[in-house]
Amino acid sequence: MNTLVDGEWRTDAYEAAGDDGSFERQETTFRDWIRDDPDAEFQPEAGRYHLYVSYACPWAHRTLVTRALKGLEDAISVSVVDPYRDEDGWQFTPDKEGCTRDHVHDADYLRELYVRADPDVTARVTVPVLWDAETETIVNNESKEIMRMLDTEFDEVLASEASEGSSGEGSESDGVASRDVDLYPEGYREKVDRIIDEIYEPINNGVYRAGFATRQEPYDEAVDDLFAALDRWDDVLADQRYLAGDRLTEADIAMFTTLVRFDNVYHTHFMCNVQFIREYENLWPYLRDLYQTPGVAQTVNMDHIKEHYYTTHPDVNPHRIVARGPDPAFDAPHDRDELPGSPPSALEAASADD
Amino acid sequence: MNTLVDGEWRTDAYEAAGDDGSFERQETTFRDWIRDDPDAEFQPEAGRYHLYVSYACPWAHRTLVTRALKGLEDAISVSVVDPYRDEDGWQFTPDKEGCTRDHVHDADYLRELYVRADPDVTARVTVPVLWDAETETIVNNESKEIMRMLDTEFDEVLASEASEGSSGEGSESDGVASRDVDLYPEGYREKVDRIIDEIYEPINNGVYRAGFATRQEPYDEAVDDLFAALDRWDDVLADQRYLAGDRLTEADIAMFTTLVRFDNVYHTHFMCNVQFIREYENLWPYLRDLYQTPGVAQTVNMDHIKEHYYTTHPDVNPHRIVARGPDPAFDAPHDRDELPGSPPSALEAASADD
Repeated sequence: MNTLVDGEWRTDAYEAAGDDGSFERQETTFRDWIRDDPDAEFQPEAGRYHLYVSYACPWAHRTLVTRALKGLEDAISVSVVDPYRDEDGWQFTPDKEGCTRDHVHDADYLRELYVRADPDVTARVTVPVLWDAETETIVNNESKEIMRMLDTEFDEVLASEASEGSSGEGSESDGVASRDVDLYPEGYREKVDRIIDEIYEPINNGVYRAGFATRQEPYDEAVDDLFAALDRWDDVLADQRYLAGDRLTEADIAMFTTLVRFDNVYHTHFMCNVQFIREYENLWPYLRDLYQTPGVAQTVNMDHIKEHYYTTHPDVNPHRIVARGPDPAFDAPHDRDELPGSPPSALEAASADD
Repeated sequence: MNTLVDGEWRTDAYEAAGDDGSFERQETTFRDWIRDDPDAEFQPEAGRYHLYVSYACPWAHRTLVTRALKGLEDAISVSVVDPYRDEDGWQFTPDKEGCTRDHVHDADYLRELYVRADPDVTARVTVPVLWDAETETIVNNESKEIMRMLDTEFDEVLASEASEGSSGEGSESDGVASRDVDLYPEGYREKVDRIIDEIYEPINNGVYRAGFATRQEPYDEAVDDLFAALDRWDDVLADQRYLAGDRLTEADIAMFTTLVRFDNVYHTHFMCNVQFIREYENLWPYLRDLYQTPGVAQTVNMDHIKEHYYTTHPDVNPHRIVARGPDPAFDAPHDRDELPGSPPSALEAASADD
């Protein structure tokens, strides 16, 4: 990926494999926090923050799922970049299906936002970006942290929306109840944090380590780690509905955005082809369960996902042909509700309304 | 693939996609016939002919399977090239596992055989090659025709081998009975020819059309054709054991060498990723049935297959990383013997001896 160096766009700094042929992901740059605290610089408010995402990107996708499950569609607006990323980086092409203009600045390129936030910025230009319209800056561009903020810091905002008698009419929230959803519940927090960390290297980043390796050894290591971890979680999910037990948590969101891309993209494009997710005894119904949780399916744009990966990495797929791939039946019954646990109450109620 | 032009090796004539991005396979060059006929130039004789193959190549593999099923191991010797093909074309690297020297000429490159057969030859240098040691020339390099010759023209050779009381001791034939196997039986011939032709374009060559397409449209067409054909044959195989009915024929050999490569290579490397063969209800047990037919498994060298494809096409797989792939249980029970039909009698007997 091209980068900004001291505020200048550089196309000679492609994010490449190291000398040993292994892929190393660079750190994200903006790491401020929205806090529900009167002294905080960034306080939760409806209408103040804006989310920049790509439907293609699993990291950005985490924030979209969290926003949907929490019912934050009215409080936090979203702009969607073009799934195809060329040497100019992520860009806005509002005429393309599923894409939007930059609703805040009408920028042409996502990198403009980075420079606006810091004219001398040195950074990879990535999604998601959580933008603060009040101070005109990027609050944070680390998916795990944005997910946490949306989950834990906006409950008062949601409560006051609810007390204003918002019926949801005319909103984007699609009937999903907009409160009482806690994806980082007391009693689970340590476990959620541990799982998010634990699945990152072998699974979330593991598919990239396999796909972007330029030598056999790092590829082999990545594939070993990936499928060992998938096998292990498949076992865990035999007896419990969600990764942390009987509650749907942020850990499941972190897992979901990788699993939902797996059969159509990572399996072939990144050569993670030992087996499909849909061949796993428990991971496959678990994936369907999450997909069918109210609000989640609407965040999945498989066309954007496939176009992005297959056309954006000529070093991996020189002719930029989009592989047909399977058509996993994400909507098929999963029977996971026979296991202990259930989605957060508000989601369950919404599900019954469907 | 590089070619010989008027006997000169040319590395600037890589077998590429056409202007419309579609792959077109060129014709093979040597098309003479061995005939069991006193007037024929090339008559069937034990020890006279030699087969040059790559374990990687599905076309060459057809001739190896035919040779094994017929029990021609003692009558027709074999040299095996290196699975990795660089700009010098197929070559002999006897120190590499599974490879041999050129047993006839001790050549370094397969192309030397082509020039020896015709000093002014213009040809793609391909396997299989059926070599006549008596007249020092290539009889034929078209897999379908070599398969037919081995199948139909050597029965007298086999009969006389048998009448000489060959016990099989010290032979390569691994206990497979060496006669009474007819893979092109009377009453099935028209059907066998029709099926071999019918599966060629969508399936045998279809995987190449998908993998070597350089534009989306020809890829999409190839994938449509391929999976439509696989779906259709999957249906056919619900009620009959083999493609032409209740007899194992050359048509099954032609199908086998593509199917056995599918999950590990074509699925990922050629992006034929709608589903694995092992996900098909009938094609998968059918493939296992053929694999377990006495003599066949020994002709499958999955290491050579994977090394060849993943490392030989940098235009498709730039970093030449060999994808892990699944490990299909070719040895698992198949229950296809509950359907009408059985392997040729000699093979069945051999099977019972195992």
